[in-house]
Amino acid sequence: SYKQTYTLSSLAGVSAKLKPLDTFADRHLGPNASDVQHMLSTLGFQDLQEFIKQVIPEQVLVQRKLKIQPETGYTETQMIDHLKELASKNKVLKSFIGRGYYGTITPPVIKRNILESPEWYTSYTPYQPEISQGRLESLLNFQTIVSDLTGLPIANASLLDEGTAAAEALSLSFNNSKKKRTKFVVDFDIHPQTLSVLKSRAIPLKVEIVQLDLKSETVFEQLETIKSDVSGILVQYPSSSGSIINQAQLQKVADFIHAQKGLLSVASDLLALTLLTPPSQFGADIVLGSTQRFGVPLGFGGPHAGFFAVIEKLNRKIPGRIVGVSKDRLGNRALRLALQTREQHIKRDKATSNICTAQALLANIAANYVVYHGPDRLKKIAERIYGYTSILAQQIKDNSAHELETTQWFDTLTVKLNGATADELLQRAVEQYQTNLYKVDSHTVSLSLDETVTEQDLVNLTELFTAKAISVSEIQNFPEFPAEIRRSDSILSNPVFNTHHSETAMLRYLHYLQSKDISLANSMIPLGSCTMKLNGTVEMLPLSWPEFGSIHPFAPKDQTLGYLELIKNLETDLADITGFAGTSLQPNSGAQGEFTGLRVIKSYLESKGETQRNICLIPVSAHGTNPASAAMSNFKVIPVKCLTNGSLDLDDLHAKVEQYKDQLAAIMITYPSTYGLFEPTIREVIDLIHSNGGQVYLDGANMNAQVGLTSPGDLGADVCHLNLHKTFAIPHGGGGPGVGPICVAEHLVPFLPSHEVRPIAKHNELSIDSVSSAPYGSASILPISYSYIKLLGATGLPFSTSIAILNSNYMMARLKEHFEIAFINDDGVKFSGHEFIIDLRKYQGKGVEAIDVAKRLQDYGFHAPTLAFPVAGTLMIEPTESENLQELDRFVDSMISIKKEIEWQIAGDSRGLVLKNAPHSAEDIILSKDWETRGYDRELAAYPLEFLRKNKFWPTVARLNDTYGDLNLICTCPSVEEVAAGSD
Amino acid sequence: SYKQTYTLSSLAGVSAKLKPLDTFADRHLGPNASDVQHMLSTLGFQDLQEFIKQVIPEQVLVQRKLKIQPETGYTETQMIDHLKELASKNKVLKSFIGRGYYGTITPPVIKRNILESPEWYTSYTPYQPEISQGRLESLLNFQTIVSDLTGLPIANASLLDEGTAAAEALSLSFNNSKKKRTKFVVDFDIHPQTLSVLKSRAIPLKVEIVQLDLKSETVFEQLETIKSDVSGILVQYPSSSGSIINQAQLQKVADFIHAQKGLLSVASDLLALTLLTPPSQFGADIVLGSTQRFGVPLGFGGPHAGFFAVIEKLNRKIPGRIVGVSKDRLGNRALRLALQTREQHIKRDKATSNICTAQALLANIAANYVVYHGPDRLKKIAERIYGYTSILAQQIKDNSAHELETTQWFDTLTVKLNGATADELLQRAVEQYQTNLYKVDSHTVSLSLDETVTEQDLVNLTELFTAKAISVSEIQNFPEFPAEIRRSDSILSNPVFNTHHSETAMLRYLHYLQSKDISLANSMIPLGSCTMKLNGTVEMLPLSWPEFGSIHPFAPKDQTLGYLELIKNLETDLADITGFAGTSLQPNSGAQGEFTGLRVIKSYLESKGETQRNICLIPVSAHGTNPASAAMSNFKVIPVKCLTNGSLDLDDLHAKVEQYKDQLAAIMITYPSTYGLFEPTIREVIDLIHSNGGQVYLDGANMNAQVGLTSPGDLGADVCHLNLHKTFAIPHGGGGPGVGPICVAEHLVPFLPSHEVRPIAKHNELSIDSVSSAPYGSASILPISYSYIKLLGATGLPFSTSIAILNSNYMMARLKEHFEIAFINDDGVKFSGHEFIIDLRKYQGKGVEAIDVAKRLQDYGFHAPTLAFPVAGTLMIEPTESENLQELDRFVDSMISIKKEIEWQIAGDSRGLVLKNAPHSAEDIILSKDWETRGYDRELAAYPLEFLRKNKFWPTVARLNDTYGDLNLICTCPSVEEVAAGSD
Repeated sequence: SYKQTYTLSSLAGVSAKLKPLDTFADRHLGPNASDVQHMLSTLGFQDLQEFIKQVIPEQVLVQRKLKIQPETGYTETQMIDHLKELASKNKVLKSFIGRGYYGTITPPVIKRNILESPEWYTSYTPYQPEISQGRLESLLNFQTIVSDLTGLPIANASLLDEGTAAAEALSLSFNNSKKKRTKFVVDFDIHPQTLSVLKSRAIPLKVEIVQLDLKSETVFEQLETIKSDVSGILVQYPSSSGSIINQAQLQKVADFIHAQKGLLSVASDLLALTLLTPPSQFGADIVLGSTQRFGVPLGFGGPHAGFFAVIEKLNRKIPGRIVGVSKDRLGNRALRLALQTREQHIKRDKATSNICTAQALLANIAANYVVYHGPDRLKKIAERIYGYTSILAQQIKDNSAHELETTQWFDTLTVKLNGATADELLQRAVEQYQTNLYKVDSHTVSLSLDETVTEQDLVNLTELFTAKAISVSEIQNFPEFPAEIRRSDSILSNPVFNTHHSETAMLRYLHYLQSKDISLANSMIPLGSCTMKLNGTVEMLPLSWPEFGSIHPFAPKDQTLGYLELIKNLETDLADITGFAGTSLQPNSGAQGEFTGLRVIKSYLESKGETQRNICLIPVSAHGTNPASAAMSNFKVIPVKCLTNGSLDLDDLHAKVEQYKDQLAAIMITYPSTYGLFEPTIREVIDLIHSNGGQVYLDGANMNAQVGLTSPGDLGADVCHLNLHKTFAIPHGGGGPGVGPICVAEHLVPFLPSHEVRPIAKHNELSIDSVSSAPYGSASILPISYSYIKLLGATGLPFSTSIAILNSNYMMARLKEHFEIAFINDDGVKFSGHEFIIDLRKYQGKGVEAIDVAKRLQDYGFHAPTLAFPVAGTLMIEPTESENLQELDRFVDSMISIKKEIEWQIAGDSRGLVLKNAPHSAEDIILSKDWETRGYDRELAAYPLEFLRKNKFWPTVARLNDTYGDLNLICTCPSVEEVAAGSD
Repeated sequence: SYKQTYTLSSLAGVSAKLKPLDTFADRHLGPNASDVQHMLSTLGFQDLQEFIKQVIPEQVLVQRKLKIQPETGYTETQMIDHLKELASKNKVLKSFIGRGYYGTITPPVIKRNILESPEWYTSYTPYQPEISQGRLESLLNFQTIVSDLTGLPIANASLLDEGTAAAEALSLSFNNSKKKRTKFVVDFDIHPQTLSVLKSRAIPLKVEIVQLDLKSETVFEQLETIKSDVSGILVQYPSSSGSIINQAQLQKVADFIHAQKGLLSVASDLLALTLLTPPSQFGADIVLGSTQRFGVPLGFGGPHAGFFAVIEKLNRKIPGRIVGVSKDRLGNRALRLALQTREQHIKRDKATSNICTAQALLANIAANYVVYHGPDRLKKIAERIYGYTSILAQQIKDNSAHELETTQWFDTLTVKLNGATADELLQRAVEQYQTNLYKVDSHTVSLSLDETVTEQDLVNLTELFTAKAISVSEIQNFPEFPAEIRRSDSILSNPVFNTHHSETAMLRYLHYLQSKDISLANSMIPLGSCTMKLNGTVEMLPLSWPEFGSIHPFAPKDQTLGYLELIKNLETDLADITGFAGTSLQPNSGAQGEFTGLRVIKSYLESKGETQRNICLIPVSAHGTNPASAAMSNFKVIPVKCLTNGSLDLDDLHAKVEQYKDQLAAIMITYPSTYGLFEPTIREVIDLIHSNGGQVYLDGANMNAQVGLTSPGDLGADVCHLNLHKTFAIPHGGGGPGVGPICVAEHLVPFLPSHEVRPIAKHNELSIDSVSSAPYGSASILPISYSYIKLLGATGLPFSTSIAILNSNYMMARLKEHFEIAFINDDGVKFSGHEFIIDLRKYQGKGVEAIDVAKRLQDYGFHAPTLAFPVAGTLMIEPTESENLQELDRFVDSMISIKKEIEWQIAGDSRGLVLKNAPHSAEDIILSKDWETRGYDRELAAYPLEFLRKNKFWPTVARLNDTYGDLNLICTCPSVEEVAAGSD
């Protein structure tokens, strides 16, 4: 029976006494066996199986046995051994392949204290600024770096990668053009993967990409012929092949496009820009690229932080998150996410982008790489790379028959070979020098030097190209970066980039930042729809290993066999879990997954000749990214109503389907619904769509309530995306990375995205263009989800799901005595799925808002649950399976204590003001002069419950003043003078 | 010139533009080039060389060029590559060798969040309890575990290893016997290395070790013959060979020794004691052993935490540190180091032990291993090991011709071989099964199973001994631990061992503990004589690698070549730095180093027939361990006076030398002196001792002021010890580990300690017995010091020393304007070495004590400097080279602010009370009811300077009430009831 199969003790392997005891499941799960019994009996059950049967409708509860091996999961030791074995199948060579990915040295102090620090990687996106000032400061540093080096005033807090950043530039240019000009000019010499991502974005927008040679003198004639249709131009600087296009020429390009009221976008490289004249000086409106080489491991392609900077007048159109400088309630300087962050929440299908995640963890590594090195050292690093490149260039020119195609460079040389094919040269490079170069065509190669280059590399490469040995010590003339293209302004002059250059200082700065933020190392983060579960240490280990970290995404296949095996297994396991036939791991966020899934559906329908199908039905309860993604994919979004009991309005659905049946392309639904409910009619809905020619897209945000108990495929859907950073244990990283693979039914497999440079197995002519720069998206963090699945195994996964549902219902049962729970009542639906909604709307007219409760929870040491989604005036709570009974009770007790405060406030008892002034920083409590008249005392503010005296987390600022921030957009580090002026 | 050779920019390698930029020196050093210039000009210098010449007397400043390679140091990348190469020369096999060292699984969450967490490993010994409650809580858990499992009420917070713990038992027994009984009985079946360490301790005490077979029935007859001379008996349980000696027999042994008023000591194994009847039940007075197998890696022998527990009546005689439960000023429960901690500070040569360090970091790992597993899982681990051992035993009995010598076991079997030699069997085990066993004699082997044992291991071992294949799945009858020797009481019932069993809960508990403590991740820890410098991440990396972690100290030599190469190089480099001919890395603390050095001197003198030389001269300014170590080594200590200007009283020295010249054995001096002064007469002192037949021991505590500028050998000394945890970058670990190697002149090399089980190269019949259980002491942390030396190189080390001296003198120069500096004045000595003393004695009669300043510094976010050593009423400050100018200034500014508070207090201004009530916890500030009448306000208490508003570290309790703690000794976790009763 269920009970026998899934018990904590069987998972612990102790029934068979010979089995090892370092099992994972009972460490991943918060509750122990007696906690489970306690919770079950609180809910009126004896048996977990019986309980689950009451929660999940009979027609939904499938419990198909998963095929995952090993069935009961690896122990932690076995997992590490297995991962080591996979790692050993990747070969770490020197990769001078370039094309957007470069060797870099992650300073050990940063690696240990960010990448390997749960305090950094388990925190959530900083939507609660009072307990996130550390990350916000670091991301503000990131923006300042981007702004400083590009020369543009406004930068965001990172994008997913360089390719999608370019796609955002295309979208922004398109949307910025009044009459929706349908041509976007791209220079020939951009990274091939960027072009592919541009195409995948352009197609649904009906934008045509026109490739031109922007360095040619005749290009302006070509531009002239299409000028009224062009919304923007994209050029790479330095170019993909390594050339630095003439700045006067670029100025002419800028002048041309500005005359057309279009935008000039420049893809660039921040390390090059430490030396090179910034694009702002020749008229760039947008500068974008990757910050990977600022200390972020290659990782077979990702995750890395893309960057995006714009001119002042585009400041309200920049996509993604922006950190802004604002003030708190007391007038102290405080940071917060500003502006159009998550615009799709508000604009839904009118949003211009579906981006809602960033690469915070990687942006923070890159930002701190700059903090650690400072401007002088960074320039020295760049100069050294330039010097090495130049020496090698000279050697090739002087001492070989090959033709150096690059005439002005930073780090990259393109060489047309004489007397050898590219394949021969590359093979020799691998075999003799353990070095990878890039094959441009049959007789052309390129190479990009980087921070890791050594004298021995120079000797090797010279020998490779010239067959001559050079003695490094003889090189007297170390080339200087050419004055005519060198920037003359000072960079990175802010104190933060000129202070923390010793390891001790850097360690303290990182610790200081970290200590301001709440993460899973502090307390539960019960964010509904975000699934903040344990990010197990064993799962995280491979991220630190060079065999995973130091692999270039375009490295030869035979050097990446460990990755490919892991990826194949993970694809298979995810397909098994979702009940589907195929998986693409390329999308590097949930929203990218949605876009990919919808593009796959569209391509499928088009392949059947059903090009007229362009309607996508989306319930009004859907996450805002759903309509945004649908709109990006050129679907027309038709909303479907929900009933007051929270379920989909089937009458409205039938009516809409009937109305649009000839154009019906798809429905996007979340299951369990965004309200946390297992709607029993799901199969009926799916059948209805199918019988009217549509495809069913199942949003995987709530997959943590499904794994092993039901699945999108079993329910009959066609596509789903998964958020590996929710259900599959990838940490949220303080606001990214995320991974959003899609799984699809058999008929959609041929349409899964391929890759231009490194074709993915199974790709064919039906494959859609890339949605990410890298072939497998954020490959280096896939071992996390892989390990999660392999550690729990086929038996542990459904048990884990059951505990997630039990934890949620236990909390709900306790809280139901004190708060209204939305959509749950004794007559109708009695149980939630893995999350539930506390409805605070009845207090709104009485002086208490949901945000007051959210902010007050900080005083109790908790990150707030999801606020105002999917229903305004509510809090949505998702505890996950990783929280134990003590923690669930501690949170519930805190909410009950807050309930008392709500009652005070409603009754006019001045102690209720503690809610309105929350959160209380130590400074507020100690320095504020109004305590005699506040109406409540310091003790109530700081220590409303006893446990806080033992373990108090202090919000570092008081409640943010959003109005001030909205009116005063500052999104770079203030200068010393500004800080001094602003701190009073 | 000096200036040209040692500049920051040359260290950074940027003068040669091809050189890599990931250099270490400029990351290790706090000040940058402009900071150095600023500090020099503050002191009236232009040039670092000129400054150093003014600080170090001409006859002392040697500046012999070091031979260390590479001369300018490795870059960080090169260092990692080099360490990886060394690591690859160690071979990781399964080691079932046992003898006190066992395979174990460090839970990944503990490895990442303690062993790899600078917040844990860079903190100091918790002498400042208000900012150390996290470690103190963890060490109290450790004591509770030891007490619970041994059954004895009092346990200390760890000892250096099992061997020295046994030696402490011998000393305690000896000192406890009224008439100093000179025989100590030791059972035959104890670990050979324990016996060796016992001998090395017994010899200077003139105690004779009598080995007997305590399990024999006739042993009582033998005991009877010596009974009036026996102070104590030591037995191992389970024994070294694996037997569990009959408890009734042990009770008889206990009865015998108790009748003689002697003590029964039991060496035991805590994992075995989770199942086995505890020694308390058959009359043990002392139980000791190692906690290594509670999650601490083998590490080629250490560091591991020894344990030591005693009966109630010995509670004031237990050696080492003890954490006690006390109260703070406000009456809240608070922890602190209690009782005879560092008794040698007070008792000097009357101290019974010279122990002053512990293995805090390792004890904390072991304690948290128990917190993570809890009693049930621990017992399951032990039962599983017992089960595996028993199955194997049965197989050997049933299916082989070998004779199983062990009749009752926990994890260890001794097998007398038939038809094979031990060598043959061991070789086959290595070659066929990658497994190490232990060779007892030519035809006897033993093996000890552990937590890491797998089914495959069982198959392998069975095959090895029986040549038969067994199928694990056929084993139906899993042996239970025998009821007659099984303990019946419940263990580890305290809530802390029954709460944090999920990884999430464990992570939070570790984070919670860590967040209460100040470490180098927070701010400078300017402890004079402790050298709290950067513990660089690169240096720490190898500690996490299995090639260093998973090596048994008795593994075959050819599996340890990487370790041996590293050790040889490190010995050579340390000898070079100290100017000596040989090094022993065996002593695992500075005090052990002192003991070892003195034992070497004694043996040398005896070898020359000068057995009458037993006088050791020690200046009164010496660290208390010096006289304690001398007394332990059977020297008679004669103090030498110091003058009021801080220098050694040469007249008194001459007089003492003259008086004792025929008995003069040695002088122990610290250089620069404990007052921080480079005494110019050092060579004169050394010559005087030599010319009177004595040897010169130079205490290396202040080596950080010497490296590369002068050296003990160059000055003419004969021996020195080094504190690798001071000068050579091993982290202090919150109170250990330490490493205290000694370096000696040529004539003393033959006397360096050897090892019983694994002979050290160069050992001979003159070698003294082991001073540590493991051949190379704390081998696994030697890569830290090795890396430190190799990263700085021959040029970086003296530069680093110079900066340490510059930093100290810069601080002193600024503070001299506000405080008296001891022994420094414009007429006499103008400069300090690497540390200096703030003299607060003039405030003592006026209501301000040095401790007030020390405690008040916590409110400014700083750990206090060394308090009351070497002069009562003073603070000794040592900034080290790793602190940058901003941090030095921040500390100085805080001291200047405190000076103002001192003046208030002296003038009767009530604001001065802020000193007396310091430190101020947040609870004090927020909850105390006396703020209207305190005489100062909350702002002054919490935020006396502006920088604290940005970065405030909160002491978690108010000032400790030492009187309460002294009167009420509680040194285990209080029960729930006690906590409830005590918190009001």
